[in-house]
Amino acid sequence: MHQDIQSTIDFILEVEKLKGVLRKTKPVGQARYENSAEHSWQIALFALAMKPYANADVNMEVVLQMLLLHDIVEIDAGDTLVYDDAGAANKYEEEHQAAQRIFALLPKAMGKRFLTLWEEFEAEETPEAQYARGMDRVLPILQNLANDGQSWVEHGIRKVQVLEKNGKVAKASSALWNMIVPRLDEAERLGYLKG
Amino acid sequence: MHQDIQSTIDFILEVEKLKGVLRKTKPVGQARYENSAEHSWQIALFALAMKPYANADVNMEVVLQMLLLHDIVEIDAGDTLVYDDAGAANKYEEEHQAAQRIFALLPKAMGKRFLTLWEEFEAEETPEAQYARGMDRVLPILQNLANDGQSWVEHGIRKVQVLEKNGKVAKASSALWNMIVPRLDEAERLGYLKG
Repeated sequence: MHQDIQSTIDFILEVEKLKGVLRKTKPVGQARYENSAEHSWQIALFALAMKPYANADVNMEVVLQMLLLHDIVEIDAGDTLVYDDAGAANKYEEEHQAAQRIFALLPKAMGKRFLTLWEEFEAEETPEAQYARGMDRVLPILQNLANDGQSWVEHGIRKVQVLEKNGKVAKASSALWNMIVPRLDEAERLGYLKG
Repeated sequence: MHQDIQSTIDFILEVEKLKGVLRKTKPVGQARYENSAEHSWQIALFALAMKPYANADVNMEVVLQMLLLHDIVEIDAGDTLVYDDAGAANKYEEEHQAAQRIFALLPKAMGKRFLTLWEEFEAEETPEAQYARGMDRVLPILQNLANDGQSWVEHGIRKVQVLEKNGKVAKASSALWNMIVPRLDEAERLGYLKG
């Protein structure tokens, strides 16, 4: 047991590095870019609060577990903007290798469980994975809508890209996505998104 | 439903502020102080990974929910060093008011549920609350042990304070606490903790 607890401590200290992986979005009202650790916290909390409006009756424990660990691979593979198709090319392979390396720090059974959860999230087939991915995707949209389109403006994003890349939000909660779509029109009108 | 989803969005944007609440600990290997949002992520993940070594067979969904929301009150009340007895004087009242204000942004049923979870965490009576609080307390100790005692040195903390204030780690996982105690002796020997 002593060795297994030590391995778990080694893991949690290794993932400290996620606090240093910067995303493209700034927290509303702050001048710095957010990191993937605080983002992971926020989407897990949002998934919890949005449960009544999910399309499916998801197992929240599984959703929260996925959201807490899904970004850890960025420690090795970095954060890729969702609209960066070139950056996405070898992304799955790189991230899968990262998942294998980092989760292997844990005791064997827990490491395998984390890897399986990560793969379930990526495969997007179960209701839990679909809900979790939608929550992950929608947060930067909500931040941009509250933040003068900060990361959209910085990367010259067009409205059609937001619509095309984030349809998976509708798979998580069609009620939420239906509220967002007209706001994208408004964001375009205000110049936060290109036409 | 539209209004309830909007309230949930308002809540998640309000709690962006937790990303700006600084703690006394620096992430291992980084020069800046960590914030309470990324800390909340890390303790939730640690609680998940440490489950096999918990004293009790806790309901992990409840534990994760508590850990994701327990620090939100710091948006109004600030972060208090665990060894700061003066700062702790009116802490519960201030934090309870903060919980009432912030969770009231949510639709009524969800707001009430979050407040109840927060109160359960604070009351430290259920196995889930005891486990969650222990995980919250132990992380800065593990960071300090890996970080030349950074926040202990900055605040002149004595070993007896760490022992007195963190006995609740033993209530969460006595196996973990038993591993840590001898490392505190070593930390004192190295000058990271005062005698």
